Amino acid sequence: MKGIASTDIVKVQGQHQSQMVDFVVAEEPLEIRLGFLKNGVRQQKSISVTMRTPGHDEELALGFLFTEGIIGGAEQVTGFSRPPVRWKQAKENVLVVELADDVAVDIGRLERNFYISSSCGVCGKASIEAVRVQGQFELPAPVPISPAGVLHSLPELLATRQSIFDCTGGLHGAALFDRDGRLMLAREDVGRHNALDKLIGAALRQGILPLFEHLVLVSGRAGFELVQKSVLAGVAVLAAVGAPTSLAVELAEEAGMTLVGFLRNEQFNIYTCPARVVFEILDGHLRF
Amino acid sequence: MKGIASTDIVKVQGQHQSQMVDFVVAEEPLEIRLGFLKNGVRQQKSISVTMRTPGHDEELALGFLFTEGIIGGAEQVTGFSRPPVRWKQAKENVLVVELADDVAVDIGRLERNFYISSSCGVCGKASIEAVRVQGQFELPAPVPISPAGVLHSLPELLATRQSIFDCTGGLHGAALFDRDGRLMLAREDVGRHNALDKLIGAALRQGILPLFEHLVLVSGRAGFELVQKSVLAGVAVLAAVGAPTSLAVELAEEAGMTLVGFLRNEQFNIYTCPARVVFEILDGHLRF
Repeated sequence: MKGIASTDIVKVQGQHQSQMVDFVVAEEPLEIRLGFLKNGVRQQKSISVTMRTPGHDEELALGFLFTEGIIGGAEQVTGFSRPPVRWKQAKENVLVVELADDVAVDIGRLERNFYISSSCGVCGKASIEAVRVQGQFELPAPVPISPAGVLHSLPELLATRQSIFDCTGGLHGAALFDRDGRLMLAREDVGRHNALDKLIGAALRQGILPLFEHLVLVSGRAGFELVQKSVLAGVAVLAAVGAPTSLAVELAEEAGMTLVGFLRNEQFNIYTCPARVVFEILDGHLRF
Repeated sequence: MKGIASTDIVKVQGQHQSQMVDFVVAEEPLEIRLGFLKNGVRQQKSISVTMRTPGHDEELALGFLFTEGIIGGAEQVTGFSRPPVRWKQAKENVLVVELADDVAVDIGRLERNFYISSSCGVCGKASIEAVRVQGQFELPAPVPISPAGVLHSLPELLATRQSIFDCTGGLHGAALFDRDGRLMLAREDVGRHNALDKLIGAALRQGILPLFEHLVLVSGRAGFELVQKSVLAGVAVLAAVGAPTSLAVELAEEAGMTLVGFLRNEQFNIYTCPARVVFEILDGHLRF
């Protein structure tokens, strides 16, 4: 099965040991190259190598390029190719993304680190400002979108989908839901950023961005970079099974995105924009 | 408290909601700059920006530089400085690592991506080969180091130490133990790579590398990069609470390091070099 490898292990329970075959999630580097027109000549440039679980490579590349601000939409990509194989080359681990002739690529920007702003030094505020400048979508003011009960149901929906694939226990998941909690897409990867990039890349390809009336669930913690990617895709509600960080909360607040953490066991915390979550009428009044 | 920020949240339990103040783990970017001598002039170059939990910045920088192969030991670093503050600059998020005059820095290598090898393409084998070439320590052939019972005890020791600091649920931990399971060092960070870099940086500073008779426990999954860092520090046994990946197992096997996964609830799996784990005499024979 793609994305999974088998390996011999010694299983230990207390003082008892036994030899068996187990499965581990596959991890391989993916090099993403850009193909683009410059001065009338098609060129290629390697822009990233990431450790990822093989599979959905094109979506991973699309989501990565979009959330890094290198492309503005799927229509700027004309195709994908795998470069010619030389001796010992790993063809499946190099992907060329061909950009349309009229897409301008700022190579200088690619080579600068995203977070470094020479004018104001490095700080959380500079990181948040960089996302704001790059942002393509402005989230509408929060109006009620989904009942609390819909949020409570999400982890089990993701777990059900994940269990089909994940017999290794080693994968991060990201899933896209509509406002009624229907699972639309789910992607998995050894890296949580990659799982979300694959999800956003798939949504981009299906033409359903911005995700102003959707919910995204991620299986781990919600750090700055996951919130950054979600904000750039226009996600209304980002929910995490784990904890958020301080900078993740600040960015979500600034962008007007609803950030939910510790979503499990019929409980969750709302860190920003709670007005998008609807509560049942318990005592004759809608409770927001 | 450093590393923690407070925030207003809405806590939801079933359909019940309440407003309260909660704590989230702090996350801020850290820019690491190298200060070095070139052509008779001291220069500075920014080499990395990473999102991290503030605290133990010098250890984080030391561990990062060591596991990236930029320095070979703590003695190559003559000091740390914070650059002069300009208007609005975040002084605490920039750290300059001053290298001794006789340390040669290969700027070209810093700018190339670690995993890309033009001669053989990108593949897991190239990544493993890169670690092998960079390796400073060759692990000795596996001999019995620690009883299984010592491994069973590690997660609780880390949890006890973490609970002092982590009231946010958002931190990854990495801990160093001697062969008898005594906790020597523990470090935490919002990023699991950073937690291990801080731990290795602290060990480097204390002069206890290579860790040929030590155990390291990480709180999450064991991917390629965590195994890479451990191999470069000469760690005998790397144990993870979560799952390993295929490439992590391959690298550990190649390097002769013992890799343990799913270490929890009196159980674990040994993926490589099981001979370092000792089992109790159950039937008159030592069981390896």
